[in-house]
Amino acid sequence: MSLTLGELAVRFGCELRGDPAIAIDRVATLAGAAPGALAFLANPQYRRQLESTRASVVVLNAADAAQCTVPALIHPDPYATFARIAALLYPTPAIVPGVHAAAVVDASAEIHPSASIGATAVIGERVRIGARVQVGPGCIMGEGVSVGADTRLAARVTLLRQVSLGERCIVHPGAVIGADGFGFARERQGWTKVPQIGAVRIGDDVEIGANTTIDRGAIEDTLIENGVKLDNQIQVGHNVRIGAHTVIAGCTGISGSTHIGQRCMIGGATAIAGHLEICDDTVISGSSNVTRSISKPEMYSSTLAAEPARIWRRLAARFKRLDKEAARLTRLERAVGLASRTAAEQDEIDE
Amino acid sequence: MSLTLGELAVRFGCELRGDPAIAIDRVATLAGAAPGALAFLANPQYRRQLESTRASVVVLNAADAAQCTVPALIHPDPYATFARIAALLYPTPAIVPGVHAAAVVDASAEIHPSASIGATAVIGERVRIGARVQVGPGCIMGEGVSVGADTRLAARVTLLRQVSLGERCIVHPGAVIGADGFGFARERQGWTKVPQIGAVRIGDDVEIGANTTIDRGAIEDTLIENGVKLDNQIQVGHNVRIGAHTVIAGCTGISGSTHIGQRCMIGGATAIAGHLEICDDTVISGSSNVTRSISKPEMYSSTLAAEPARIWRRLAARFKRLDKEAARLTRLERAVGLASRTAAEQDEIDE
Amino acid sequence: MSLTLGELAVRFGCELRGDPAIAIDRVATLAGAAPGALAFLANPQYRRQLESTRASVVVLNAADAAQCTVPALIHPDPYATFARIAALLYPTPAIVPGVHAAAVVDASAEIHPSASIGATAVIGERVRIGARVQVGPGCIMGEGVSVGADTRLAARVTLLRQVSLGERCIVHPGAVIGADGFGFARERQGWTKVPQIGAVRIGDDVEIGANTTIDRGAIEDTLIENGVKLDNQIQVGHNVRIGAHTVIAGCTGISGSTHIGQRCMIGGATAIAGHLEICDDTVISGSSNVTRSISKPEMYSSTLAAEPARIWRRLAARFKRLDKEAARLTRLERAVGLASRTAAEQDEIDE
Repeated sequence: MSLTLGELAVRFGCELRGDPAIAIDRVATLAGAAPGALAFLANPQYRRQLESTRASVVVLNAADAAQCTVPALIHPDPYATFARIAALLYPTPAIVPGVHAAAVVDASAEIHPSASIGATAVIGERVRIGARVQVGPGCIMGEGVSVGADTRLAARVTLLRQVSLGERCIVHPGAVIGADGFGFARERQGWTKVPQIGAVRIGDDVEIGANTTIDRGAIEDTLIENGVKLDNQIQVGHNVRIGAHTVIAGCTGISGSTHIGQRCMIGGATAIAGHLEICDDTVISGSSNVTRSISKPEMYSSTLAAEPARIWRRLAARFKRLDKEAARLTRLERAVGLASRTAAEQDEIDE
Repeated sequence: MSLTLGELAVRFGCELRGDPAIAIDRVATLAGAAPGALAFLANPQYRRQLESTRASVVVLNAADAAQCTVPALIHPDPYATFARIAALLYPTPAIVPGVHAAAVVDASAEIHPSASIGATAVIGERVRIGARVQVGPGCIMGEGVSVGADTRLAARVTLLRQVSLGERCIVHPGAVIGADGFGFARERQGWTKVPQIGAVRIGDDVEIGANTTIDRGAIEDTLIENGVKLDNQIQVGHNVRIGAHTVIAGCTGISGSTHIGQRCMIGGATAIAGHLEICDDTVISGSSNVTRSISKPEMYSSTLAAEPARIWRRLAARFKRLDKEAARLTRLERAVGLASRTAAEQDEIDE
Repeated sequence: MSLTLGELAVRFGCELRGDPAIAIDRVATLAGAAPGALAFLANPQYRRQLESTRASVVVLNAADAAQCTVPALIHPDPYATFARIAALLYPTPAIVPGVHAAAVVDASAEIHPSASIGATAVIGERVRIGARVQVGPGCIMGEGVSVGADTRLAARVTLLRQVSLGERCIVHPGAVIGADGFGFARERQGWTKVPQIGAVRIGDDVEIGANTTIDRGAIEDTLIENGVKLDNQIQVGHNVRIGAHTVIAGCTGISGSTHIGQRCMIGGATAIAGHLEICDDTVISGSSNVTRSISKPEMYSSTLAAEPARIWRRLAARFKRLDKEAARLTRLERAVGLASRTAAEQDEIDE
């Protein structure tokens, strides 16, 4: 597909600086672009690449446009504009309706005639699959699963019994939705399994990354609301709720019964303890440990950044001496007659 | 299934406060219960829900019973009692013996006639599958695998050559047991693979979560003893041993050749270094880094909790200055004539 | 296979201390060896096991040979020598060429006649599979995938459209290569997906662990160079580049667009932020958080080790008071007339 800058400016509401007749047929990075390609600038880290780019046009904001040496499509939100142009240039491949001969579909399943069921997929009893759903090869659906219209399961996705997925969702390979939550009661002779009888309910427009796991509820359902985006290798414990339009980056783990609000942004490799309430619009930086509920929507962090090990070893050793060094402070304060405020400060930690 | 409170009290050894003829047929949370449901109280965080619950009966301990406004089944261990009642109300579905027509089973495999082999499962040479084993769809077993009676592989579980699983185990989808351990010798031209010739041996009553990986031993076997419970997305390196009845929460990684004792409880997202010995009954809180062996069974931790980022940034900056601030302390001590103990303290860190 | 110590000494360039006619036919650990087995000593932690080993021969370095009570094969690099001997004793099983009857292969795929395609594998359009490639059961390959000669996909590996793998690679079960990167643009009504149109290109002699995920590039390709070794459950974001012969241990996450140099060694459970440059030969200890680019090749760390929780709680509380304790220092310095250097030090943190 080829589009002119004039068409793009009109369709996406951009100010065009340059010849409206120029055509592009693909996207590229600023550094990698050749003529015929559209690039974008959203991260200021890459601003210096504007000088040398060979792109036919760059999508950027007004402030950066001055430094652009090639035609520009100016928009206050260049990244979203780029996303929409790219979606136009690279449409999702149309699916081929029908059930592959090597799929295994239970007779009681209701599969919309416009859906596509791939090779070696296994569809269980009473599964309902909506219009234009793509079930990639190797997907497995247990009894009573339902999948809404236009959802795409890339390949090798496992949906266990009673899991429901909304419309227009995307689920990547290896995701496991609806495995038993981790619930055991301690007894003298070992651990007794607590039956996990809830399900997982997932809203519309949710994306779930490769090898991410979302456990079924212990009693009630685990809930993922509309528009949530989960990256790869995220673990979502039983009875977690994730509010609409929250995004969570890879390798994050969320322990059971924690409720995360709407529009939160959670960085990768974050660990969130169980039974917490995280309010709407919370931002958590990557690699944080969240151990208490959050009721004020701001940014939270607990990351200590890597240092050269020879420096880090000294800092870690100092850290282990913090209690002793506080005692040295107190002793000093006493020695110079500043002891009065110290006692209270000591108390604080002794609680 | 419907059960009366009288039957439950007798069968599970509870004191009943309320009408023994009342019947329940399902479980529910305190907050979500309607008449006909049994709920429980084990986590004090939910105690205030006792006031308003509509459950027909609540399983709880004697201390909490006073605040219970509906019938009560009183037991010193309400959670385990609840688990057993729930198992009675929600029995594991019976398996349908036989090999699915779309399974691929090697002629040399020995499959007990009471076992169930699901669609698209692939069973390799000389595999032995015991009585009443459920092999879900998409499971793969390499040469020489053995699976003990009553074990259930939910779906899409991979057991590589020579792996053995005991009786009554449960393995969730995406688990990979017996992949090569991570062993390479550095040489001038790159890394030389060290053959991984050990296997994985897993005891009875072990549960293994979705997308958890347990590597085969380098020379000897990786060992998981009876009653171990592993949550989702856990990584177990080669030659690890995990002692009986230890439970490990999700996203934890255990490096090679570490031995974990019996009855340990390890929180999620914990990282445990290699070649360590962790003694029986050790408790490790979530998100900890374990870098040394543990010989005393108590609780260990290394988690710093997330703070608002504006506060955290100051703390992290202070942390990086710990060495300098210790030097300020020393200088102060010298200035006020308290220097004598300082030298020794400095030495400690300079080692 | 049985080999004499004389043969081993000649073939692997070792000095032999002992009878060249002695034969071994297997490997074992020092502690577990019986006569007929070859053991090795590389980790000094196991040196004391030399005294009591029953191995027929031990591969070790000259310094340790003095303490060896059984025959010795002396080599400056005993671990690599052991690896090569073990590879000789335990050769990779030969593959059986041909396409399994239960595999699903698109008519447009080009499969070398010497390759092996396992049961339930699904091979898409225009896939190219080289000589002696082993595609294990349950593997899935999307449109346009290519796999170089002698590569082995153990089982249940997913390669999405356009992914290319070089020669002699090993990929373990559950790995997902080429799923969409995590790219969304925020808009008022939610998140707009940014099409992920790059691919993943992987060089020769790469090993990829179980359940590891490598995302396709957003625009350009994600690149894994020759000889890279990735352990289990690693997440590699879109547009990451990993330089030749770098090794990364399990559970590590690498955010998008980060470039890692050659010959780096990265410990497990490390979190690396996006858009960073990590130079060649960098070493990062396990459980570190890397948040800034690294331009100097040394060892980096940010791990605080677990302590008994009763001690840790005091340290964590002290940590939270670091800002206040620095203020106490400043006050003390003023009190004893040492304030002059303090102001500058305070400024540093106030920036």
